[in-house]
Amino acid sequence: MRASLLDALVSPASVAIIGASNTETKLTARPMRFLKRHGYQGRIYPVNPARDTVLGEKAWPSVSAIPERVDFAYILLDAAPAIEALRDCAAAGVRIAVILADGFAEAGEEGERRQREVRRIAEEAGMLLIGPNSMGVVHAASGFAATTNAAFGAAEIGRGRLAVISQSGSVIGTLLSRGAARDIAFSTFVSVGNEAAAGVGEIGEILVDHDGIDGFLLFMETIRNRDALAAFAAKAHAAGKPVVAYMIGKSEEGQALSVSHTGALTGSADAVAALLRSIGIRKAEQLETLLEAPGALAKARLRPHRPKTATVIATTGGGGAMVVDQLSARGVEIAGASAATKTHFADRGIPSGHGKLVDVTLAGARYEVMKEAVSTLIRDPETGVLIVAIGSSAQFDPELAVKPIVDAVAEAPADAAPVLAFPLPHAPDSMRLLEAGGVATFRTVESCAETVAMLMGGAAPAMAPTASVPAPAAALIDKLAPGTTDEVTSAAIFHALGLRGPRQLVLAPDLPLPDDLPFAYPVVAKLVSPDLPHKTDAGAIKIGIADRTGLETAVAEMRASAERHLPGFRLTGILVQEQAKGLGEALIGLSRDPVAGPVVTVAMGGVMTEIYRDSAVRPAPVGVEEARKMVGEVKGFALLRGFRGRPEGDLEALARAVSALSLLAGDPRVEEAEVNPVLVLEDGAGVVMLDALVRT
Amino acid sequence: MRASLLDALVSPASVAIIGASNTETKLTARPMRFLKRHGYQGRIYPVNPARDTVLGEKAWPSVSAIPERVDFAYILLDAAPAIEALRDCAAAGVRIAVILADGFAEAGEEGERRQREVRRIAEEAGMLLIGPNSMGVVHAASGFAATTNAAFGAAEIGRGRLAVISQSGSVIGTLLSRGAARDIAFSTFVSVGNEAAAGVGEIGEILVDHDGIDGFLLFMETIRNRDALAAFAAKAHAAGKPVVAYMIGKSEEGQALSVSHTGALTGSADAVAALLRSIGIRKAEQLETLLEAPGALAKARLRPHRPKTATVIATTGGGGAMVVDQLSARGVEIAGASAATKTHFADRGIPSGHGKLVDVTLAGARYEVMKEAVSTLIRDPETGVLIVAIGSSAQFDPELAVKPIVDAVAEAPADAAPVLAFPLPHAPDSMRLLEAGGVATFRTVESCAETVAMLMGGAAPAMAPTASVPAPAAALIDKLAPGTTDEVTSAAIFHALGLRGPRQLVLAPDLPLPDDLPFAYPVVAKLVSPDLPHKTDAGAIKIGIADRTGLETAVAEMRASAERHLPGFRLTGILVQEQAKGLGEALIGLSRDPVAGPVVTVAMGGVMTEIYRDSAVRPAPVGVEEARKMVGEVKGFALLRGFRGRPEGDLEALARAVSALSLLAGDPRVEEAEVNPVLVLEDGAGVVMLDALVRT
Repeated sequence: MRASLLDALVSPASVAIIGASNTETKLTARPMRFLKRHGYQGRIYPVNPARDTVLGEKAWPSVSAIPERVDFAYILLDAAPAIEALRDCAAAGVRIAVILADGFAEAGEEGERRQREVRRIAEEAGMLLIGPNSMGVVHAASGFAATTNAAFGAAEIGRGRLAVISQSGSVIGTLLSRGAARDIAFSTFVSVGNEAAAGVGEIGEILVDHDGIDGFLLFMETIRNRDALAAFAAKAHAAGKPVVAYMIGKSEEGQALSVSHTGALTGSADAVAALLRSIGIRKAEQLETLLEAPGALAKARLRPHRPKTATVIATTGGGGAMVVDQLSARGVEIAGASAATKTHFADRGIPSGHGKLVDVTLAGARYEVMKEAVSTLIRDPETGVLIVAIGSSAQFDPELAVKPIVDAVAEAPADAAPVLAFPLPHAPDSMRLLEAGGVATFRTVESCAETVAMLMGGAAPAMAPTASVPAPAAALIDKLAPGTTDEVTSAAIFHALGLRGPRQLVLAPDLPLPDDLPFAYPVVAKLVSPDLPHKTDAGAIKIGIADRTGLETAVAEMRASAERHLPGFRLTGILVQEQAKGLGEALIGLSRDPVAGPVVTVAMGGVMTEIYRDSAVRPAPVGVEEARKMVGEVKGFALLRGFRGRPEGDLEALARAVSALSLLAGDPRVEEAEVNPVLVLEDGAGVVMLDALVRT
Repeated sequence: MRASLLDALVSPASVAIIGASNTETKLTARPMRFLKRHGYQGRIYPVNPARDTVLGEKAWPSVSAIPERVDFAYILLDAAPAIEALRDCAAAGVRIAVILADGFAEAGEEGERRQREVRRIAEEAGMLLIGPNSMGVVHAASGFAATTNAAFGAAEIGRGRLAVISQSGSVIGTLLSRGAARDIAFSTFVSVGNEAAAGVGEIGEILVDHDGIDGFLLFMETIRNRDALAAFAAKAHAAGKPVVAYMIGKSEEGQALSVSHTGALTGSADAVAALLRSIGIRKAEQLETLLEAPGALAKARLRPHRPKTATVIATTGGGGAMVVDQLSARGVEIAGASAATKTHFADRGIPSGHGKLVDVTLAGARYEVMKEAVSTLIRDPETGVLIVAIGSSAQFDPELAVKPIVDAVAEAPADAAPVLAFPLPHAPDSMRLLEAGGVATFRTVESCAETVAMLMGGAAPAMAPTASVPAPAAALIDKLAPGTTDEVTSAAIFHALGLRGPRQLVLAPDLPLPDDLPFAYPVVAKLVSPDLPHKTDAGAIKIGIADRTGLETAVAEMRASAERHLPGFRLTGILVQEQAKGLGEALIGLSRDPVAGPVVTVAMGGVMTEIYRDSAVRPAPVGVEEARKMVGEVKGFALLRGFRGRPEGDLEALARAVSALSLLAGDPRVEEAEVNPVLVLEDGAGVVMLDALVRT
């Protein structure tokens, strides 16, 4: 029986190094040197047709010449010969193949062709392909260091319980080195490179089953397979293993770079952030948080019966205030000591300051005070997590200020609040002492606060499963020609999704106007034409028409204006609508972000939204509950929430409309869909779409 | 001749330690122990009436009993005896006195009385008072460690060229310890505590003359003397010595804490940030930036003829993209290699990537490539500063990746762009090598980016000198009773400042209405009353009055409504105004922030400003140029800047109005002043104030 895919990835029985060099100083000699240095116990097969031996091992002319089916092959050749070697791997029944070479998707058309080719080879053979552009795989516990990354040339690498999956190979060295300086070690590193086949999500799904892995660090430049990433995140969440991601390409300059860097397309930062949040991946704003948060989140879990609050205790007023500041800036609710705890402290003569910060500075560094204070606060029902800001005593008197924390935690009941610590001074020994005692520690106040905010934010996946488009709407989409759909048909599609428009009538373009309308004036009139997507620009819309004469004039003016705008435009009808009056307007849109995939957006509409960029975005589709949260995030809707005594608008109906429209994400033919404006009537009266657009 | 105040502060000839303990483990024994440990060469006089000797030195019963006039006295006694000791210091002609005790302004009314008392004693004696609540003063070069801060118990403290002035004593230990771990040493530390007399500004003004100080780190919880801080910042700017501040109390929770912490009042974060920027102090968002920025800013100066741009060169694509990302997120303009440089690189076979990041990863770690690349880029006229992101070679091959940077800088002409470096891995040796070669280094990408943004932002003080209120306006203010002034008088004050209102007429309340008005209908009518500051709430304003009959009805309705709102209100007149029509509205306000002092605010007015908090704020007064920048910062004014083909409003006139109104800051009697709304007419037509308010 062959090894599981997980075993083949982290401790294969055999590994082929294709293109291994016999020259120690060469990059292509590194994998064999590092495998030996770190004590890998499996069989190593260097493949090099030009030599009999490589670095003391018998060399093989090809993978298929090796007398066993190897689990893992690392291909160190240039792009073109690498493809040939991959074919050989496929033929030889290799389980996992990794390609080092660049010259694939990031290198123009020829490179893209090559990338499709390697992907096809791997798929047909049922072989897991990592890369191209991959610096390899390292698993500390098995000494499996199949990597070209110079950082693993160190005499020893620590063994930890966190996995790193990175789209940048060099950043793996950064994390290894900074982790070591900070006493954070790792279990596994995978450099996924261009992700021609397996990417962050697929590798994560394999590793998440590993007993020796408690959490994940992702370094990403783009998202190539949103479904795989979401599936991995869901599995990790179910297993209680935190996933933290650092994404580059936040800024527009960064985004432009990402394109040139590894062939990555980076989409709008907001859409990507919303996607990560929705699938339950925590986004680190600072690189140091990527290092510190996963271990801390694996260690400090919120207790089910405790509130989502943080209490801060400090042996330095300034330091404590700094922590409170940073937590509050990230929206973490600060709890102080409860009244009962305050009385308890007062009875024991423990000075605890005024306000919410529990400031024990005046007690001096005393073991009993610190232990009593921490013991009491982690049992205080108002405390969700306890953060200890330790002053100079972390550096000079760990026995007095740090040991009592560890002792209090050791004696704590199971439902006590978890403890996290931030030593103000440089105090590596105290940090080790605390970590060994189960207390997560942070080197910077910013990383501490960011991690606590992650803890409070929760990470339960909130993305709706991709639903199919309801049949009546799908039937209409089936009939569409590609391109922008006129608004009558667009409105019909949205109507099939449950959105209603104003009462209306479509008149034939060349018949006289009727004497009566089935609804009262004032009305709105528009020209219906597949050639006029922007009615306002073409002068093809008139509002506030008071009577029949006004309607006649309006139609004549619109036709003249549209003819000037686009001579020979096709006129298919005259749309006459009741002029609905709402309390405010909104915009709902569905679009496909190049990185985040289909996303739905809701905003206030109008110039203010453009100026203030006041909108909420989520990966589509969304359920009504999530849509409600989106509506709640749009600041401008304060005007429809009873701001300063104004009447309330039907934001519940707006949320239902957002959810309904988002279902169109399920039809890959729909490139874009928008209802703008949608009129929000008063509470209970619903919403009315005034203009609609679908692009297929 | 006595020593200068600067000498008395950092290397006094003699120091008295009042309340020095003979028990080594006591806090009050620390100053004497630390002075001796760090080799202070001046005369030390322990003052302790209960003993003959203290820690081996002859003890004195009082300062006045000491046979010389001591330069510096550190009072370690509790609050009440400390005041007595301070009197004795004053009588004995002590130059500088420092008080350790708490129990002053932060401790209620009695404490505030004590604080006024010590201030008075010091002022009358012409003695510089530091504290209370001060952990003392340390100057590394003279071994002068007059401090109770345990952090200075270390065997040795480094000698650097940066001064720390802190309102929190314990944070000094944090900076010392973190600085040492990061090879950053300091010249001087001053713990200013409650700042009863001398504070951050006054101490800074003394230290800025020191030849051994190149820059300042401020840790602040509040601003107690804005003028002194501004004077210090201006002197530091003139001397080319950067000043960087970290302020706590950013969040509302943090602000609440600040109040209880050291009796500090913290005002709105925006007003404080605007004040620091205006006086030329750089605000650090992260604690690590406070450590790294001052030295870097002192080292890396912008060259006058170079653009304000940053070019990033990297030996790691992912790392380089991370730097570009963080710089762009902070608004730093990224320049790439110029066309000439690209050709130069191509000619020499130096691969430099696509896009703006100069990515030399593919060249591998090679001395010649790195040196040539850095040498060329720092001479490239499109580069303002060069940031080098160094990959794993910073850790493993400093000879190949770091030495060439230092060598290139050593050979650079005077006008070459300065170089800053961010090593991706943990690489302290490379950082030392770089710093020794004049290259500022950063441990985190965030601190690097924040510092580069500071460098680009400039720090020239931009605050207008406090001007007196123009005579005609001052004459009107002279006549005011305290409280809120009615709008006719308020408008008269603003009129005297050059703002114009609509044409108007005040009618006596009990005479019949005139048949004709000197301007055309429609008009606006308001009740004039000192009792109705909020006209709308009282129903005391009517707009769009079309004719004489309408005016009659309007007056009757307003009187009835106001009588219901506030029975017995005083009616002094009926104000009738032409109904001016503008393109938009604005609000201009002057207020006194408890921390930042008088500030002027401009915003769009209306609900959108409230919802989006879209305003610009500056310490008042401001000149027209600064007011123009303020108007430019308000996003909503896009609507008046020709947004989407709209007509342009007279924003220049608005800026003049902002500057004019801000002059009221010069009269301390004016607590608050507001013009809301001010109507912005079309470009060239000016602005019209519609409603005005002054509170004295």
